[in-house]
Amino acid sequence: MACSKFEYVKLFEQHTTLLPNTFLVVRLDGHAFHRFTSTHSFHKPNDPRCLNLMSHAARHVLDSLPDITCAYGQSDEFSFALRRKSTLYKRREAKIATNICSLFTAAFCCAWKQFFEGVEMRYPPSFDARVVAYPTERNLRDYFAWRQADCHVNNLYNTVFWSLVQAPTSPLTEQQAQRLLRDTDAAAKNELLFSRFGINYSKLPEMYRKGTVLFRKPVMVSSVSSRDGVTLVERMKSCVVAEHRDVIGDEFWVENKYILED
Amino acid sequence: MACSKFEYVKLFEQHTTLLPNTFLVVRLDGHAFHRFTSTHSFHKPNDPRCLNLMSHAARHVLDSLPDITCAYGQSDEFSFALRRKSTLYKRREAKIATNICSLFTAAFCCAWKQFFEGVEMRYPPSFDARVVAYPTERNLRDYFAWRQADCHVNNLYNTVFWSLVQAPTSPLTEQQAQRLLRDTDAAAKNELLFSRFGINYSKLPEMYRKGTVLFRKPVMVSSVSSRDGVTLVERMKSCVVAEHRDVIGDEFWVENKYILED
Amino acid sequence: MACSKFEYVKLFEQHTTLLPNTFLVVRLDGHAFHRFTSTHSFHKPNDPRCLNLMSHAARHVLDSLPDITCAYGQSDEFSFALRRKSTLYKRREAKIATNICSLFTAAFCCAWKQFFEGVEMRYPPSFDARVVAYPTERNLRDYFAWRQADCHVNNLYNTVFWSLVQAPTSPLTEQQAQRLLRDTDAAAKNELLFSRFGINYSKLPEMYRKGTVLFRKPVMVSSVSSRDGVTLVERMKSCVVAEHRDVIGDEFWVENKYILED
Amino acid sequence: MACSKFEYVKLFEQHTTLLPNTFLVVRLDGHAFHRFTSTHSFHKPNDPRCLNLMSHAARHVLDSLPDITCAYGQSDEFSFALRRKSTLYKRREAKIATNICSLFTAAFCCAWKQFFEGVEMRYPPSFDARVVAYPTERNLRDYFAWRQADCHVNNLYNTVFWSLVQAPTSPLTEQQAQRLLRDTDAAAKNELLFSRFGINYSKLPEMYRKGTVLFRKPVMVSSVSSRDGVTLVERMKSCVVAEHRDVIGDEFWVENKYILED
Repeated sequence: MACSKFEYVKLFEQHTTLLPNTFLVVRLDGHAFHRFTSTHSFHKPNDPRCLNLMSHAARHVLDSLPDITCAYGQSDEFSFALRRKSTLYKRREAKIATNICSLFTAAFCCAWKQFFEGVEMRYPPSFDARVVAYPTERNLRDYFAWRQADCHVNNLYNTVFWSLVQAPTSPLTEQQAQRLLRDTDAAAKNELLFSRFGINYSKLPEMYRKGTVLFRKPVMVSSVSSRDGVTLVERMKSCVVAEHRDVIGDEFWVENKYILED
Repeated sequence: MACSKFEYVKLFEQHTTLLPNTFLVVRLDGHAFHRFTSTHSFHKPNDPRCLNLMSHAARHVLDSLPDITCAYGQSDEFSFALRRKSTLYKRREAKIATNICSLFTAAFCCAWKQFFEGVEMRYPPSFDARVVAYPTERNLRDYFAWRQADCHVNNLYNTVFWSLVQAPTSPLTEQQAQRLLRDTDAAAKNELLFSRFGINYSKLPEMYRKGTVLFRKPVMVSSVSSRDGVTLVERMKSCVVAEHRDVIGDEFWVENKYILED
Repeated sequence: MACSKFEYVKLFEQHTTLLPNTFLVVRLDGHAFHRFTSTHSFHKPNDPRCLNLMSHAARHVLDSLPDITCAYGQSDEFSFALRRKSTLYKRREAKIATNICSLFTAAFCCAWKQFFEGVEMRYPPSFDARVVAYPTERNLRDYFAWRQADCHVNNLYNTVFWSLVQAPTSPLTEQQAQRLLRDTDAAAKNELLFSRFGINYSKLPEMYRKGTVLFRKPVMVSSVSSRDGVTLVERMKSCVVAEHRDVIGDEFWVENKYILED
Repeated sequence: MACSKFEYVKLFEQHTTLLPNTFLVVRLDGHAFHRFTSTHSFHKPNDPRCLNLMSHAARHVLDSLPDITCAYGQSDEFSFALRRKSTLYKRREAKIATNICSLFTAAFCCAWKQFFEGVEMRYPPSFDARVVAYPTERNLRDYFAWRQADCHVNNLYNTVFWSLVQAPTSPLTEQQAQRLLRDTDAAAKNELLFSRFGINYSKLPEMYRKGTVLFRKPVMVSSVSSRDGVTLVERMKSCVVAEHRDVIGDEFWVENKYILED
């Protein structure tokens, strides 16, 4: 509608378009979350309230954008995959990244109270996001495997680290714990956890060890017929489900072929 | 910390970096705000609750990022200017756009209740954002002039349009109003407003007609000395102020030279 | 080696990197070749001297860059495909495009005399180039199919057009020929060629109708042994061959699987 | 003209457009010129035949593209500046870089014989190119200053280096010369040149020490009137001139204001 001699400045906009026929992944990260988690006294190494709130916010993103096939989250990050043929926002990089980041942020803030009962939010948190294009199924699967392997490595480390620091008897300082763990491999960390704290790492909640994957599952839903208002009608509907399961092996991908299809 | 054979997928990330020594402008827009405003029964043509909430959220962005020199908002959009020499997030396009968008969204959601007392938020709103680089002072000023000219044109139109549609006696349908206004110039719209509704457009609130500009102003603040806890100490501090004023002419820019400087 | 206070300007360089694990295609076009062909009185609709010189220049590019798997040329254009895993020039777009364009231009100019005996080059010709990334085998094959379909359509048109314009008796002007051909389909053009000029289009040289594809073929070469300087030694060597054949169907791709492989 | 079901592949092309209202600089470099110069036995440290051929090729580029305001060359590189407001090829990065690189390459190859009389070109040379955008006059001037400072530093080094290696009596190996020069400053190199070889560096040809700048100069040209074929008519014409002069100080830029203007 508007029209002025200043309108030429619009020509300076440069729209990066993501390569067609590639899988797109948007990864969100908590921005300066170190400060946010300590201001709000998050539990260490994992705060289930936050993890559940993250999943809740991710579900809002999937509910808003049907082109997102699945999402994977751990710690203060969440990744969203778009189907190969998606033309969401004409595949404009900035629009995809900023809108997904905004949808997530809004849901996170609005649902804070549900998940952090009795905890006042001291200041609004923020996130940042990036988009990456992956040309093959293998690349996309390896992306998710990368994040889940990262979850495993970090969570094992953090579990031992915080056990040492929060030990009821002779706790270590953070620096001491760091020094102790330097150069230990996974086996040594597992051993230390068990021998010193009686913790069997493999028995810890899967949400901590594997992260959370959200995907769409066809489920049977029944509703009252709109025709007569009485009869129960059953139909298949795609629902977003959240599970804490392996995405490195084949099983998940064989079960959910739709993610890799056109 | 993490390290796996999947890590190669990181190489697919492509970081667009914005040209050094240019002014950067991030413009946020409400995403699908037509639905959001009607779901929440926003007042038409302007809802001061929303405009004030937008400014509040923008202020949060300026408070969080000192490299932002000023911001301009109208309707459901807000633009933020970064200083020419800013190296915020290494000038990475995605990080700048997503984080500013996220900061704004979070503040908008968290402060909803303050501005929309008694109005329940039915679903979380979202925004999108883009970054544009401007090489010269002239280009940057013309950018802001463009948005303010746009504000003027749209607001005049919307004011007449909604006056016709919401007229207490013989209101028009939206389609009729649209048809009536097609091809009318500014003078005709002013005349129509005055003759039919007794509205003098130039007397309407400046917030509606000019939008809102946020900028940093050195102000004198006094505080109790930390030395003796008694003496009042005065010092200059840069504060974010919001004004509804012209940014097309020279005055604003002469007064606030820091915006265009290095 | 050099170091000065001016060196900061290097930071303004922005290196676009092409998405890993995608096929890269560089397409060269003659720049302002209309003028170049008329200045040098090229034969119409096809000048075999130019087509052969183009292929010669393309062969020089394949000889210089082993990562190029095949090339396809027609008219004043040539396309080069790089293998999916190529890391040539770190996949920097500008370097790949400019160097291939330069190699081609240089070979074209240096071999002019061999192909245009007795024709003085009046001024140096130039080309331009672009790089495109294709994520799948299907996309890459469709790219070559696109260019060959284009060759067919253009060549049929041009053959009729120039037959009409160069007709020994009652030739048409270019405008008349254009008007006559407007809206004719392929069948009509074939018919016109045959009935009026006795030309059976399908009997015209394949180089004109199909263009030229260059690819690498393992061939047996024999050379004198470096050990005794006498014995003949045979070994397989990859040679660049040029053929005028179909690249739309499967045959070419099945025969030359290496093009689509990693 | 062409139209086929394969045409969708065109959508994969991504056209990077260079920021409007910025100075554009295209820098060409000889590709693998170490091999090219040794194959053709170029004189060391400077071969005037090559430098003159480079300037000749650069002149061809300026003659072909009026939007290029000036160019600067040294060693095997040449930089071309486009005016701020240029819309050459819609400011498409690939097209600008490849076409300028191709024009230069073609002219270099075609004029080889004029400059290298009696020297057969053993294989076609090639170049590569990049485009950089500079937002301010200062940045553009600093770019040229950077290249000229680089010329100075390299040429001083190379002059001493090759004097040592080519010394008629007790020449050093390249490795010995390199080791000797490591960590010497400019004064030491000048001193060494003078004391050992009687060479006063500042008396060496300016073409070697300062490189070559090409720019447009209005000159008076006289021609026979087309009206009567007799009268001599004088008019101003813009001609490309080549000079070996300082571009770091103000003088050149004050004299040639047009370069920095719109």
